[in-house]
Amino acid sequence: MTLTTDFGTADGFVGAMKGVLARLAPEAAVVDVAHDVPRHDRAHAAWVLATATREFPRGSIHVCVVDPGVGGARADVIVAAGGHLYVGPDNGVFAYVGADDVEGTWAITSPAFRMPEAAPTFHGRDVFAPAAAALARGLPPELAGPATCAAGTLPWSARSDGQRGVVVHVDHYGNLVSNLPGPARAVRIGGLAIAVARTYEDVAAGAVLAYVGSAGTIEVAVREGSAADRFGVVRGARIEVEA
Amino acid sequence: MTLTTDFGTADGFVGAMKGVLARLAPEAAVVDVAHDVPRHDRAHAAWVLATATREFPRGSIHVCVVDPGVGGARADVIVAAGGHLYVGPDNGVFAYVGADDVEGTWAITSPAFRMPEAAPTFHGRDVFAPAAAALARGLPPELAGPATCAAGTLPWSARSDGQRGVVVHVDHYGNLVSNLPGPARAVRIGGLAIAVARTYEDVAAGAVLAYVGSAGTIEVAVREGSAADRFGVVRGARIEVEA
Amino acid sequence: MTLTTDFGTADGFVGAMKGVLARLAPEAAVVDVAHDVPRHDRAHAAWVLATATREFPRGSIHVCVVDPGVGGARADVIVAAGGHLYVGPDNGVFAYVGADDVEGTWAITSPAFRMPEAAPTFHGRDVFAPAAAALARGLPPELAGPATCAAGTLPWSARSDGQRGVVVHVDHYGNLVSNLPGPARAVRIGGLAIAVARTYEDVAAGAVLAYVGSAGTIEVAVREGSAADRFGVVRGARIEVEA
Repeated sequence: MTLTTDFGTADGFVGAMKGVLARLAPEAAVVDVAHDVPRHDRAHAAWVLATATREFPRGSIHVCVVDPGVGGARADVIVAAGGHLYVGPDNGVFAYVGADDVEGTWAITSPAFRMPEAAPTFHGRDVFAPAAAALARGLPPELAGPATCAAGTLPWSARSDGQRGVVVHVDHYGNLVSNLPGPARAVRIGGLAIAVARTYEDVAAGAVLAYVGSAGTIEVAVREGSAADRFGVVRGARIEVEA
Repeated sequence: MTLTTDFGTADGFVGAMKGVLARLAPEAAVVDVAHDVPRHDRAHAAWVLATATREFPRGSIHVCVVDPGVGGARADVIVAAGGHLYVGPDNGVFAYVGADDVEGTWAITSPAFRMPEAAPTFHGRDVFAPAAAALARGLPPELAGPATCAAGTLPWSARSDGQRGVVVHVDHYGNLVSNLPGPARAVRIGGLAIAVARTYEDVAAGAVLAYVGSAGTIEVAVREGSAADRFGVVRGARIEVEA
Repeated sequence: MTLTTDFGTADGFVGAMKGVLARLAPEAAVVDVAHDVPRHDRAHAAWVLATATREFPRGSIHVCVVDPGVGGARADVIVAAGGHLYVGPDNGVFAYVGADDVEGTWAITSPAFRMPEAAPTFHGRDVFAPAAAALARGLPPELAGPATCAAGTLPWSARSDGQRGVVVHVDHYGNLVSNLPGPARAVRIGGLAIAVARTYEDVAAGAVLAYVGSAGTIEVAVREGSAADRFGVVRGARIEVEA
């Protein structure tokens, strides 16, 4: 089972979830994916989930808690997609993993999947951890509650199908990750034409390059530097394949 | 077994402790609670411990190393409280978990519980990890050393029993966590009267609210913002239940 | 198996590596050492590795991915040293752990130790995790590829043998860690003579001290403060034992 949150690594939230899991599913191995997702940033979480969790064995359970609307209108859900089970708020964090092959979505309403009196500001502890523990103990997601459709969306899709895309993620190194599938010869972003290389060492230190990134889409980077800082580009910026 | 430290996630200190645990208690599952507790901040650590570790199964072992006085006058201790065992410096980090039902406190002096020549600046590696490993292997805490009383204190208690309390914790989101038990109708902080809601979505984005937080005490937040930044409130600030 | 990277804790890189490990070596326990090594900082990673991993049981596998030259000229290697196996780029990150007793170094070229089409910008996922998984499953490092010599170097060695050394690491607290073996009576750094004490509480809060640190070398610290900030000292600064 994996955990992805915006809880940070200075607070007790992650530990409280792990405590619930240790109590309710003591046999489950719990793996930290990332806990420093920027606060409330659903699109960032969605990309992290998509790139990290697809490497896990089929049948894995992935909990994601980036949940500014906790206790409010958005539903608590389990999403089955691509052979994995995802647990969290229906607010867009599953938009990329559930883009193609969603096998089912269920609301989490059953008392076997949530604490009787869930704190309205901490569903990570009182709903999502118990639901993940129930799945880890072998309960099927159908028992969590009524089938539903994931309604949470993001402004972009993980893949664009044409020559025009957007920067869907800015990573830890300031690399600009697009939703343009590679390969390409050159890309254009912010009025700049950038040749596509294979890896960072193909250009001089400090130089800009584009390449097919590890997610299979075009990225723009500055070798040993930050493309985000250099060009002031933020998520959502347009990027095009050069004709 | 859980770990809570101010060692950060860029250095070798956490890894060194895990190495000792892997060597001395290879069967023990080691769970990270938080390693970015602000440097030397005992009160922060105490709150994280109290909110995270109480979710774990009874009988769990929790190591906390926030220890500016390492190698000095404060004692190395094991505290049995609430059915859990806590290992760390006697400097206040156990003030909240040991507030009510302390079952015993022991100094860590036995050679079975610490390295023969503990580095005076790294008891995490040379005292607390070996002590936790000894407990994990089944040695009772009574064998660690003489019974004592935890002397470490903090300026505040985790719960206030009246209508006046203090902000005992500022969390990752800038929420102000008080020691005032909920529920209440309204609270007053910094000259401001704030109505109590149920959760964030009960107010508009950017608006202030109070609510009964996941620890059972009153918190003050700004929806999708930081109450700490908005009001310049720091830990220790007074907060009152409105009559 | 341990992981040390500069991937940060906000992105999917660490999770992707853990996913590969869960798939290829499901029995292996995976332990986070540190993921917030400063971006591309090979010397920082080398010190973290050296101080953390030597505490683990002999035979442990340690993966380190701080790899600005990924996909370029530097080799992918397995280094056997001090009874442990290290997996990562040959760029200096193993300079300290392999300083003394290297038992062997092998390039990772065999298809049993790497993905058939490794992404040229993410060898952590496509080479180092699969190689570590192969080792964890019991394959000997000799099968990874041809024997070689680690070529990666750093400007400093982990130990100096004389009275003159350098600051080889600045830790999370701003302590200046030298490669001068202790003990000593006093040290000189930046024109300042500093008496050697035993631990922080031997001096007043805010005062400077030197001491034999937990790695066995001389360190300079400010009690409850940062020596790096106080003196503006950076890694590589000269430090001497006072005659």
